[in-house]
Amino acid sequence: MFRHTSDLQFEAKPEKPDALYAMKLQELIGGAFGEMTVTMQYLFQGWNCRMEGKYKDLIMDIATEEIGHVEMIATMVGRLLEGAPDDVTAEAVKEPAVAAVVGGMNPQQAIVGGGGALPVDSAGTPWNGKYIVASGNLMADFRANVAAESQGRLQTARLYHMTDDPGVKAMLQFNLARDTVHQNEWLAAIEQLQEDGLEGPVAPDDLFEEENQAHARTHWHLSDGGEADQGPWASGQAPDGRHSFEYMADPAALGGKASAPAPRPHQYVTSR
Amino acid sequence: MFRHTSDLQFEAKPEKPDALYAMKLQELIGGAFGEMTVTMQYLFQGWNCRMEGKYKDLIMDIATEEIGHVEMIATMVGRLLEGAPDDVTAEAVKEPAVAAVVGGMNPQQAIVGGGGALPVDSAGTPWNGKYIVASGNLMADFRANVAAESQGRLQTARLYHMTDDPGVKAMLQFNLARDTVHQNEWLAAIEQLQEDGLEGPVAPDDLFEEENQAHARTHWHLSDGGEADQGPWASGQAPDGRHSFEYMADPAALGGKASAPAPRPHQYVTSR
Amino acid sequence: MFRHTSDLQFEAKPEKPDALYAMKLQELIGGAFGEMTVTMQYLFQGWNCRMEGKYKDLIMDIATEEIGHVEMIATMVGRLLEGAPDDVTAEAVKEPAVAAVVGGMNPQQAIVGGGGALPVDSAGTPWNGKYIVASGNLMADFRANVAAESQGRLQTARLYHMTDDPGVKAMLQFNLARDTVHQNEWLAAIEQLQEDGLEGPVAPDDLFEEENQAHARTHWHLSDGGEADQGPWASGQAPDGRHSFEYMADPAALGGKASAPAPRPHQYVTSR
Amino acid sequence: MFRHTSDLQFEAKPEKPDALYAMKLQELIGGAFGEMTVTMQYLFQGWNCRMEGKYKDLIMDIATEEIGHVEMIATMVGRLLEGAPDDVTAEAVKEPAVAAVVGGMNPQQAIVGGGGALPVDSAGTPWNGKYIVASGNLMADFRANVAAESQGRLQTARLYHMTDDPGVKAMLQFNLARDTVHQNEWLAAIEQLQEDGLEGPVAPDDLFEEENQAHARTHWHLSDGGEADQGPWASGQAPDGRHSFEYMADPAALGGKASAPAPRPHQYVTSR
Amino acid sequence: MFRHTSDLQFEAKPEKPDALYAMKLQELIGGAFGEMTVTMQYLFQGWNCRMEGKYKDLIMDIATEEIGHVEMIATMVGRLLEGAPDDVTAEAVKEPAVAAVVGGMNPQQAIVGGGGALPVDSAGTPWNGKYIVASGNLMADFRANVAAESQGRLQTARLYHMTDDPGVKAMLQFNLARDTVHQNEWLAAIEQLQEDGLEGPVAPDDLFEEENQAHARTHWHLSDGGEADQGPWASGQAPDGRHSFEYMADPAALGGKASAPAPRPHQYVTSR
Amino acid sequence: MFRHTSDLQFEAKPEKPDALYAMKLQELIGGAFGEMTVTMQYLFQGWNCRMEGKYKDLIMDIATEEIGHVEMIATMVGRLLEGAPDDVTAEAVKEPAVAAVVGGMNPQQAIVGGGGALPVDSAGTPWNGKYIVASGNLMADFRANVAAESQGRLQTARLYHMTDDPGVKAMLQFNLARDTVHQNEWLAAIEQLQEDGLEGPVAPDDLFEEENQAHARTHWHLSDGGEADQGPWASGQAPDGRHSFEYMADPAALGGKASAPAPRPHQYVTSR
Ligand SMILES: [Ca+2]
Ligand SMILES: [Ca+2]
Ligand SMILES: [Ca+2]
Ligand SMILES: [Ca+2]
Ligand SMILES: [Ca+2]
Ligand SMILES: [Ca+2]
Repeated sequence: MFRHTSDLQFEAKPEKPDALYAMKLQELIGGAFGEMTVTMQYLFQGWNCRMEGKYKDLIMDIATEEIGHVEMIATMVGRLLEGAPDDVTAEAVKEPAVAAVVGGMNPQQAIVGGGGALPVDSAGTPWNGKYIVASGNLMADFRANVAAESQGRLQTARLYHMTDDPGVKAMLQFNLARDTVHQNEWLAAIEQLQEDGLEGPVAPDDLFEEENQAHARTHWHLSDGGEADQGPWASGQAPDGRHSFEYMADPAALGGKASAPAPRPHQYVTSR
Repeated sequence: MFRHTSDLQFEAKPEKPDALYAMKLQELIGGAFGEMTVTMQYLFQGWNCRMEGKYKDLIMDIATEEIGHVEMIATMVGRLLEGAPDDVTAEAVKEPAVAAVVGGMNPQQAIVGGGGALPVDSAGTPWNGKYIVASGNLMADFRANVAAESQGRLQTARLYHMTDDPGVKAMLQFNLARDTVHQNEWLAAIEQLQEDGLEGPVAPDDLFEEENQAHARTHWHLSDGGEADQGPWASGQAPDGRHSFEYMADPAALGGKASAPAPRPHQYVTSR
Repeated sequence: MFRHTSDLQFEAKPEKPDALYAMKLQELIGGAFGEMTVTMQYLFQGWNCRMEGKYKDLIMDIATEEIGHVEMIATMVGRLLEGAPDDVTAEAVKEPAVAAVVGGMNPQQAIVGGGGALPVDSAGTPWNGKYIVASGNLMADFRANVAAESQGRLQTARLYHMTDDPGVKAMLQFNLARDTVHQNEWLAAIEQLQEDGLEGPVAPDDLFEEENQAHARTHWHLSDGGEADQGPWASGQAPDGRHSFEYMADPAALGGKASAPAPRPHQYVTSR
Repeated sequence: MFRHTSDLQFEAKPEKPDALYAMKLQELIGGAFGEMTVTMQYLFQGWNCRMEGKYKDLIMDIATEEIGHVEMIATMVGRLLEGAPDDVTAEAVKEPAVAAVVGGMNPQQAIVGGGGALPVDSAGTPWNGKYIVASGNLMADFRANVAAESQGRLQTARLYHMTDDPGVKAMLQFNLARDTVHQNEWLAAIEQLQEDGLEGPVAPDDLFEEENQAHARTHWHLSDGGEADQGPWASGQAPDGRHSFEYMADPAALGGKASAPAPRPHQYVTSR
Repeated sequence: MFRHTSDLQFEAKPEKPDALYAMKLQELIGGAFGEMTVTMQYLFQGWNCRMEGKYKDLIMDIATEEIGHVEMIATMVGRLLEGAPDDVTAEAVKEPAVAAVVGGMNPQQAIVGGGGALPVDSAGTPWNGKYIVASGNLMADFRANVAAESQGRLQTARLYHMTDDPGVKAMLQFNLARDTVHQNEWLAAIEQLQEDGLEGPVAPDDLFEEENQAHARTHWHLSDGGEADQGPWASGQAPDGRHSFEYMADPAALGGKASAPAPRPHQYVTSR
Repeated sequence: MFRHTSDLQFEAKPEKPDALYAMKLQELIGGAFGEMTVTMQYLFQGWNCRMEGKYKDLIMDIATEEIGHVEMIATMVGRLLEGAPDDVTAEAVKEPAVAAVVGGMNPQQAIVGGGGALPVDSAGTPWNGKYIVASGNLMADFRANVAAESQGRLQTARLYHMTDDPGVKAMLQFNLARDTVHQNEWLAAIEQLQEDGLEGPVAPDDLFEEENQAHARTHWHLSDGGEADQGPWASGQAPDGRHSFEYMADPAALGGKASAPAPRPHQYVTSR
């Protein structure tokens, strides 16, 4: 069960409105790596976590924080939209700066949201449940979490350079910091999973005898770039400590023809 | 530019058809972490890669291999669907084993695909472009690649236990092996990025002075589980070597009220 | 079965083209509360209606009118796009008013639609079947209809203020009027359902004995705003005439720990 | 900002697992009217609400409760999936009861979720942001809330009859009760909005002079059912107290031909 | 503007209910080539048609017929769902025939639709606006129409073999016939477009001087199958009467390296 | 299995960057008729093709070429985005030409893609698997291929007129040429299917005895345009050589009332 306090985790006050930036900032709300994603990803991971204790508690702490991040950025978007020139017709535009705003705003923030944030990204695409990952395997999921926080911090960093507003920048400095912490936390949790003997560096940590061992260490060179054999992935010991990489410079197909079986009667699939 | 050979990378012949399993195996074609995803993810990463050389060559080699994985699994699905009882009416079903198949098949594989594989997952949801990540930041992207191969191997391992067919198991043993190699390769590439001084453990490797430093190391305890302070993420040095974790046992909101600004005239937003 | 007449239900002639507005007006075609939604929502409600007679006839009359509304607005969009400057390159733009149009147009109306309306909303998102509601329960569905017409009139009102074109305004004045009528009609139908003894104020009108009666009247105060107890929802008789509201100022969780069960063997879900 | 307690709002313990029902219950998590929808709908409405005070506090209280409903049902789904026969091959099925389960389960709950709940509905379709409504106009939005709680209670009632499990029924009895309260609360809030003079029965409460008054009261009879004139929507005073309904038995189109304008050069639109 | 008559274009009465088939038949309502698609495709083509006269009249006649096809099949689906065993628990299933139905039904037809048709396909995926094509170029669009009616008749033919119900078969015999007529009509219209001198066999009928003429007749042999040179596409005159096909047995790439440009500062794209 | 060469099929070098055009050109990558669609459409058709030989070889040759088209256009988009003014704030805009770019760019190409191409269309909508057709019936599928190449060439032609850049125009001249060839090839293959006796002009080539013959030749005149009887579809022999068209000037509905059956108990569908 959850509780809510009306104060924001961190202040979200722009110095002045900026409807063009409000459109861009939607990426951090409803984008594939926005705050709705990490909120739902961590909530479902926490709810589906099979071990009581430190890992589940870690997940639920961060999940709960993330709901507040959606709130913080939605509040910022609403404030950036204050007084947006959404009823200015193109014909009335006399200034290039206004033209950029009138041409670039997301009209749905006005028509649908009445000047409020929407659960969409910076291109207006709605958030959807396929953005999240919650498999129950903590190694696989924590790696997805590191990846999500990395893309999140990257997008935040890009957005940081697209504004001069000190209020917006202050909030983004907080977001950058939280993305730094969260990357570090998931990285630490990945190390801990291995130290606790719960998972290994290849996820999931099983079926190594059953998998096709001849093909568990080879790099297939299938493009014609000349330097793929010059990285540590082409020779030497693999990160899992189990395999030695091998570079196949000119690999041949191992299977037979990619043919399809005879069709069923009455399927009207063309055949002789 | 690409070229194609008609032979499969590895054999994909089931001992006998199994329409129920054909539905499940679609997850590895059109699922969020299926072969269409890694194909498109690596292709776009390769095309958008800004450095000629070993990283780009690595990406393009694996990307090209993945197109062949879609082919391999699509061929297997087509063969598993051979003679599928898609025109058996429920009333005609006299055996529980047949009932399970008739009730569980994906009807679109027959009605739409004529007994062939579809670009959808095991629930029939179509693949979409939001499944892929190609940001141009190799650290952020390689982490997404490790995560994708981890989820992919996990799903393959689960599917491995859902069949007794030796032909299917042989193909999945190959897939498991390739997912092992690819996890190792992306992990090796992540290490190499750092050794080459291109990226650090926090992605992107910048803005550490600008980010809000007071909040770049704290864990906010916002759920009431008792053990989140017992992991390495709560104290000690963070994986980035820059920060020392700090556990905030009872953190207070730092921002003001989450209020929205006064609405525009003519937006008909309710207010006084 | 349907028949069509080539005349529009109401005139849809702009005084002059306006490609920027044509993009915005798409919201009323393919938006979540646009005319495609009410068309399909009322059609499916009518087809699935289980009682011959006045309710079904009401639904089918309005459904049939709505198809003509899609036609009317699609025609308007096509006319607003006449001569749109879709082949003007950015470099060639010398006027701010033109810049706003060139930057703000929906390129798909030109590239995909050849200057015609598309089944998308003002952000270019395609209409989809999840926008509609047709449950067979007329109370629940008529409430959804009131809600849809309310959002529809609201969006129309917002769009009304975004144009000065007398032809567009005339058509929108007609649309506003129809949304007024339709709101009134569905509200009247809701009252009638209750007068006819078919449904009560809580939908569906059953299971009042079975539902957990201790929790069928309480407001759980879970945010920290101070005034939620000052509305009629916090005390006094509820609109259904069955319950007395009760305000729980500091409610406690009633359930046990939100734990997940032990995983299956071979699912590779992390656990001890 | 939010906080979380590990106890569920209400107990969610099935007497025994039931993988087929776990698939159906997903409707209440990720369906168009499931708990994810009301959670996000109310959160965005609260964040975008322009008036501090009782309405915003009401919204945020219920929004916060709804996050806990997602948790409660996700926990139930996870427990219903315990020991699900997801690795039983069709061939091995000897009992009709098992056949129904093996054929009917959602394979993604196993393959993707590892036996946990997913952010999808009972057909496996992912939740998306277009399911929610937050326009800033409280009348329009509260009507959408009444509609959502009505569909939600209706679906819960249907699901209540699809199980015999006393633990599941106990939780659904709680959900039914909360849906009853929430319907009553939003209905009360709608009355209050009018009593407070903030909104009228037609939303939004404006543009009545501007709208086309000749068409703001007429029912267009466009289907051939014989009884649409026998309801209160065909004559007498409309619910808004402003208009008198009028039934048009054989209405004629008022507009001109639905023609499209001449195409642009180089659009290659077929014309003479 | 449209009018509706309550009688169906053709009878849609199953001899008896069949919930499993009701799920499959959804493909013809909300599938990519179902009746909702041809309805909306032809309506938008008609509304966007730039020439008054026979082509537009043809399109609008067929478009209007198609709305009635959605109605006809939706009615059939509702009747097939009569008395569907949607509240039978798996445990209660004693017969394989019932198991197939209980496992195979679409639960949303019960939970969401109350036993009515939904705007989704046979896998439960909602219909969406991207299924339709209306470009304004009649040659390109009529070809899409032939293709849609071909897929539609193919799916209808497949569904025809999946039922023994004489009532269902009678309706499908009507649908097959209409799909035959409509294929013939669009084919005739394609010939007429050319006879009228409006479009040629390559769409659009222009830019033949501008296009790269060296590459407007060559087949690039990029797979290793041995017989692609044995069809009429490899040599001889092309269907447009303008070009002679040429088979390139071992074509070489013509462009330079597929490299990406240097990144912008502050995009944090990995580069040296 | 596939192989890749680093050289592009054809050069893709703009004379200078153009971020506005880069957004538009996305239509040819991730649009419904973009290169991702034809790539996946032909690949799945080839993999599901049931006849070894010339048809399958034709399909796989073109499929493999299309992967290289995605690469070519993605490379072009990346180069058009070089130095895009994505961090220019609206306020800083002093020139109308810059305003058009700043307002019109796709922000996701910067925020998400780091200046690279995305798997989306010109409105930012992600590519999805429902865009493709692979039914196993070659006549139906080749018609879909002709339609796809027609829409593709049409969109390319429109885009050709939206730029003055000689490098972009050169690449589009190549694309136009390939779309010409591919249209010709699929048209030739359609003729060949008939010459080989594999399929007839109505797809699928069967069930002509079973289909309702009275309705397999009639045009239902359901709109009120006056000229639908003046085309070759209204009388004379149909293209299939089997039927004579007949024009029904005032057709009557043939079926009974479109009524829905009595609801199930406990579905709470409104009825008496
Ligand atoms: Ca965050
Ligand atoms: Ca793979
Ligand atoms: Ca309307
Ligand atoms: Ca709830
Ligand atoms: Ca039809
Ligand atoms: Ca192409």
